[in-house]
Formats: sequence, structure tokens, C-alpha cells
Amino acid sequence: MHPSGFITLTTDFGFDSPYVAAMKGVILTICPTAQIIDLCHGVKPQNVYLGALTLEKTARFFPPGTVHIAVVDPGVGTSRDILLAQIGDYYYIAPNNGLLTRVIRQAESTRVPMKFYTLENRGYWREAISNTFHGRDVMAPAAAHLLRGLSPENMGAPATSIVQLEIPEPVVETSAITGMVEDVDSFGNLITNINAKALAGRALDDSVQISLSGKTVTQGVCRTYGDKPAGDTIALIDSSNRVEIAVVNGNAAQALNAAVGDKVVLGSRQ
Amino acid sequence: MHPSGFITLTTDFGFDSPYVAAMKGVILTICPTAQIIDLCHGVKPQNVYLGALTLEKTARFFPPGTVHIAVVDPGVGTSRDILLAQIGDYYYIAPNNGLLTRVIRQAESTRVPMKFYTLENRGYWREAISNTFHGRDVMAPAAAHLLRGLSPENMGAPATSIVQLEIPEPVVETSAITGMVEDVDSFGNLITNINAKALAGRALDDSVQISLSGKTVTQGVCRTYGDKPAGDTIALIDSSNRVEIAVVNGNAAQALNAAVGDKVVLGSRQ
Amino acid sequence: MHPSGFITLTTDFGFDSPYVAAMKGVILTICPTAQIIDLCHGVKPQNVYLGALTLEKTARFFPPGTVHIAVVDPGVGTSRDILLAQIGDYYYIAPNNGLLTRVIRQAESTRVPMKFYTLENRGYWREAISNTFHGRDVMAPAAAHLLRGLSPENMGAPATSIVQLEIPEPVVETSAITGMVEDVDSFGNLITNINAKALAGRALDDSVQISLSGKTVTQGVCRTYGDKPAGDTIALIDSSNRVEIAVVNGNAAQALNAAVGDKVVLGSRQ
Repeated sequence: MHPSGFITLTTDFGFDSPYVAAMKGVILTICPTAQIIDLCHGVKPQNVYLGALTLEKTARFFPPGTVHIAVVDPGVGTSRDILLAQIGDYYYIAPNNGLLTRVIRQAESTRVPMKFYTLENRGYWREAISNTFHGRDVMAPAAAHLLRGLSPENMGAPATSIVQLEIPEPVVETSAITGMVEDVDSFGNLITNINAKALAGRALDDSVQISLSGKTVTQGVCRTYGDKPAGDTIALIDSSNRVEIAVVNGNAAQALNAAVGDKVVLGSRQ
Repeated sequence: MHPSGFITLTTDFGFDSPYVAAMKGVILTICPTAQIIDLCHGVKPQNVYLGALTLEKTARFFPPGTVHIAVVDPGVGTSRDILLAQIGDYYYIAPNNGLLTRVIRQAESTRVPMKFYTLENRGYWREAISNTFHGRDVMAPAAAHLLRGLSPENMGAPATSIVQLEIPEPVVETSAITGMVEDVDSFGNLITNINAKALAGRALDDSVQISLSGKTVTQGVCRTYGDKPAGDTIALIDSSNRVEIAVVNGNAAQALNAAVGDKVVLGSRQ
Repeated sequence: MHPSGFITLTTDFGFDSPYVAAMKGVILTICPTAQIIDLCHGVKPQNVYLGALTLEKTARFFPPGTVHIAVVDPGVGTSRDILLAQIGDYYYIAPNNGLLTRVIRQAESTRVPMKFYTLENRGYWREAISNTFHGRDVMAPAAAHLLRGLSPENMGAPATSIVQLEIPEPVVETSAITGMVEDVDSFGNLITNINAKALAGRALDDSVQISLSGKTVTQGVCRTYGDKPAGDTIALIDSSNRVEIAVVNGNAAQALNAAVGDKVVLGSRQ
């Protein structure tokens, strides 16, 4: 696989920060032809779990050979190392803290080949390495050298131990599926960890009750938002194939006072 | 007209969202040479009216042949169709829900030619189409194919019915001009729907009283912010040629407790 | 020096605004090959001081020949002029209001050559110049013409008077160093104006007390966040070589109720 010339950036740096631009400057100084795209900088600070989810949902839309850099890195400057991974069609550069858990699981489930290296060769880092910003000083230059044609083998040694997060899976029973709110998107939609596949063969009509934190919020699974009047609470299958709870033209997180981690149950009406 | 190679994106996806990046990935996978620019992702959720205003004010600054994609799409997945339009020097791809109202009005007033197509040819969409994200699954690939040289005729059929929003126009009388706050910018400036042209021939000195929600807030129309001391409420002509109410070095929306829809009157002092 | 083809944008326009896109459209219409990178649009409105700090910390990471445009411009449309500067490896285009103060100080301290011009030649501006948006009407087109090969001499006359801000320097005494919180980053980290150089030769162990607004908040200077448990208040040297006060995996500004301007003292324990 050859790098495509594209680099994406996923961080928890937020909007106000010039830290993202510092990384872009470092990349472009080494490889001026790099095409850099912001994947997401709104990962909640230090939330490796949500960073991993963002990568899973979005990295796969980019051209093969894209280098995805991810910096959600509360352990920066400690003994945690930094990975350069080849996972299917993509390269990933990220701290070895679980950020790649979900793209690894995806690859495992589809038997896609993977290779992991630990970035070690300081010759491809910035000269002075801060203790608090390896995104700029290690990951950005490594990605730029990769784009210039350097092989991963030249930048590090094979990685032996890959940190992975525990991912709570929904419990699927005949009578009910029990999961949780895994993410809240910018519209306030509550995206659960229940994949549409788990619904196969079940009725999706009004006989299904959807409850949130123990309270029934809606019945049945709609096709899309516009199927119900504004203000209605609905359930539907979102664009990543997850069950989602939404308020039509509204903000479900606010209206239902819900947050990541809240319990969601799809059950049959008695 | 040939596409220029530039695509802009206008959405209500907000900052935190990786949905914008998903669209970029889809575009670049089909057309790796596309140059994608964020026009605005801060349109208020589901607010088609403000999305239309954003396009009117900003699309025209881009190179001729730019493809403007706009996704403020509360009706996604329902029977509303998706337009590909040629309006003057630009292409637009947007749901047929009124988002193009204002660029159409502009074109009408300057007698610029327009053509409208309904995207119908699924061969140029993504293979699996979600019910909730046509920006990624229909509009992004269509724009990419347009950039690659496909003609609009190949992607859809002529559109016959173009949805347009009602746009409240200010009432111009000899004694007063009555309009409304139409937008609040990121500085908190209150931008009205009163075009500077409506002021032609009127005195702009202290004999003009500007009132907001029935209360006089300032007299006269300044040239620019620095004409008055910090903290003063002023009126001026903004960079889109609209009457604007501002607080010098402050936030007028907060200071005056004002919002979109508030009544604004420019009247002569009795 | 030749322009590299890169332009960065630093503004106080915020996330919601299409004003940034208007500038990009103007640039690309004149110079379609320009590579435009957002440096930061989260400068606090009208805060020239923080804009200057952002430029100092980030501009230097970009390729030599990059044109940095900075628009924090409360005096737009008044008699303040607009500078085109060559400072070391970079071009800068900014209002003459102090925004360049810090990159000028850096250049002075390293004896880097500087040249300043006042943008005067209206032939390289947009045709109609608003009174409130010179970023779009003057600075963007000037940067684009610079990229196309126009020499600064053709765009303006040598500038004679460069406005500079007063920058409060920390007071370094044998017993203590007294500075202030100069910036709060997107993680809520409190970044002081105390450069690590000022600590040379001093003990950084637990004998050093760090106080904020008169209250001791921590002892000793850590290497990085992960050196202490989550929730601990720590001091460390940040990626711009400044003393920083942080809360591990938390938000120091909120937890310590701190803001820009708060007094910070590093003193020896008695």
C-alpha cells in the first residue's frame, strides 16, 4: 500500500486551539504536497473511547492509502508508546492507548490484514521533543515522512502489545435488547451501541417499546426524522447503522436530559 | 460552464461532528483532486432560512464554476428531492426545501440564467443509501462526479417545482423603514433585512432614530465600529450592505437581549 | 524570499461565521492554486493581545514563505493602516494595531531581518471596499496577489510607524518569579507568561511553591500530565516552553476558577 497523499487529523483540541494548525505546519514543512483534512477536533478532552468511535465511524470513507493521525493522548510524555499501524486500506498514527481499538475490531471481523509498528526512530521526529505535545513533535513529522515515501519499517520496530479498550456490547435476548447511549451527536441525537443487525427478524412496528434510563420514550422504529411531527421523540436507524433516539427538529439530549452511558432497552410490549 | 475544481460545504452539522469529514472522504475517494472548502457548518440546526442567507452572502465570493453543496435537511429521507442547480457562475447541490431561495432571488433580480435538475441517477450515488444522511450518500458523490466532468443531464432530470421560502421584506415608507433582525453574527452584531439601497436619499445623521423591539437604541448611521467609543450602541452598513446594529467592542445580541426576528425601525425624529 | 503557496488565516470570527469562507473565496478567485490553512479562528473577539500570542506560538511551524493573514481588527475602517511585513521566513498581513508585536519581538531577539509596508495600492484590493471587513476586501486580495508573484513594493509604501502592544514581562527575583496567566487553552490549562528559561538553575522539586491569585495550588514542576493522578493540580513546562498550571485530565480554569490576568508566583518554600 502506498500513501494516497491525504492525512486526516482527529483530536480533542477543540475549536479555539491553534494546536491543530501547529501540526499542519509541521506536516507541510516536511511534505508540502500533503492534503490535510480535519476529521474531527471535537472529541471530548481525554476521551479515548469517543475518539476510537469517531475513527471507526469516519476513517473508512477516505481514499485508500490515507494516513489517519489521532491525538487523544492523556498519557503524552509518559512511557506509553506511539503506534504506526497499517489496518486494511489505511495507515493510522496514534498513541498506544486504545484509540485504535474499534478500527482493529472492524478489521478483525472482516479478516483484514494489520501491521503495527512503534515509532522509535528519532531521526524522523522534530529536533526538540516537548513532553506534552507529541502530536506536533512526533506524529505529524512521522506522517509527513510516510507521505514522502519512507517505509514504516524505517520509522519503528514491530509493536508487540497493542492496548485495547473494553467495549460494552449490548445484551441481546429474545424479549429485549439492552444497550446504552454511546455518543451524542451535534444535533443532540442519542446514538446507541445497538447495531441494526441485532434487530434482524424482530418487529419494528409499534409493538416495540424503546426505553431510556428506565422510562419508555417511544414505540416503533421510524425510517427517518420527517416521518413524525416536530417535537416527537422517535427511534430510527442512523447513518452508521445504529439505533438512534431523536427528537424531530429538536435536541434529544436536552429534551430527554440524556447523556452517554444511559441505558437503552428495546423490548416487546407485554 | 465547467466546474472549477472547488467544492464548498454549508451545513448545520456544528463543530463537534465528524459528519462533515465523512462527506469530504466520499468526495475525495471519487475525485482526489477536489479542493474542498468549508463555507459554514454553524447554521442553526434545521434552520433552512439561515442556511439560505449564508449561501446568498458568501457563495458569490468563490471562483466561477465552484460547486456549492448545502445540507440543512430536516426532511432527509422523505419524499423531498435533491436539486442540482446551475445558477449564474455556480453549481449548487441541495435538498429542494428552500435552501436555494435567496441565490435564486439574486439571480432573478440580475437576470442571470438558471437550470435545475433533480438528482435521480443512483449510479452516481453511494451504493448503500442511509435514510438520514443524503449529504454523504447522494450529494457528496454527485458533486464529485460533476467535478470529474459528468454533465448534470446525466445525473438527473429537469426539475419542475422548486420550493422557495417566504422572505419577509422590510416595509419602506416616507417616515420610516420597518424591518427585522435577520441574523446574528459571531460577534453578536444584529444584522437586519434592511438593504442599504433602501436608505438612498435619506439623511443618515442624528435625525434618524433606530429602534429595536420598540425601544430607541441609537441615532444616526456610523461608518464603522471605531467611530464611537467602546460600549456604545451604533448602527452601520455591514459588509453585505445591510443595516446592522452593533455594540462597539461588545456583543449587541447579549447587551440588548436581542434575537433573530426582533423588529427594527429606522425613523425620523419628530 | 518567495511565497511558498501557503496562506494561513488567524481571526476572531469564531466557528459559526461564514466570514472566513468569504476571505478564502476571494483568495482562490485571484489565486486558485493557493493552499489556505486555518491557523486559528477562536481568538477572543477584538482581543489583539491574544491574537498576537497565537501568531507568536504557531506561525513559526509553517513552511518558509508562508503568508500569515491576521484579522483581529476592532479599528477596521478607521484611519489605522494595514501592514504587509516580511519578518524572517514569513510574510504577515495584518492591521497596524499591535497584532504583530510578538513576532516582531521574536525577530528582534534573534536579529532576524524585517521589512514593513503599508498596503496602499487599491489596484490590488477588491473593487468595492466595505468599512467593516478589510480582511475580505483588502488583506485577502493582497495575499493572493503576493502569491501570484507581485512584489510587496508594488502593493504599498514602506511603513514608518509600527504599533506595538505593551507586553507584561514576569518579574524575576532570587526568591520568586512573579508572572500571570497569559492564555487559557481549550483544555482549560493555564498558560503563564513565565518562560522556562527563567527557571534555569532553580530547583524544580517540591521545594518550589506555585501560587495562583495568592493561593498555593501545587509544589514542584512535573514533566507531564501523566506524572500525577487524575484530578491533581500540577505545574509543568508546556509545548511553547511556558510554565503551565493544569489539572490532570481536568479543566484547570474551571476547577481553580482562574482567568487570563491572574497572578502566578513561583517561590521557594520558607
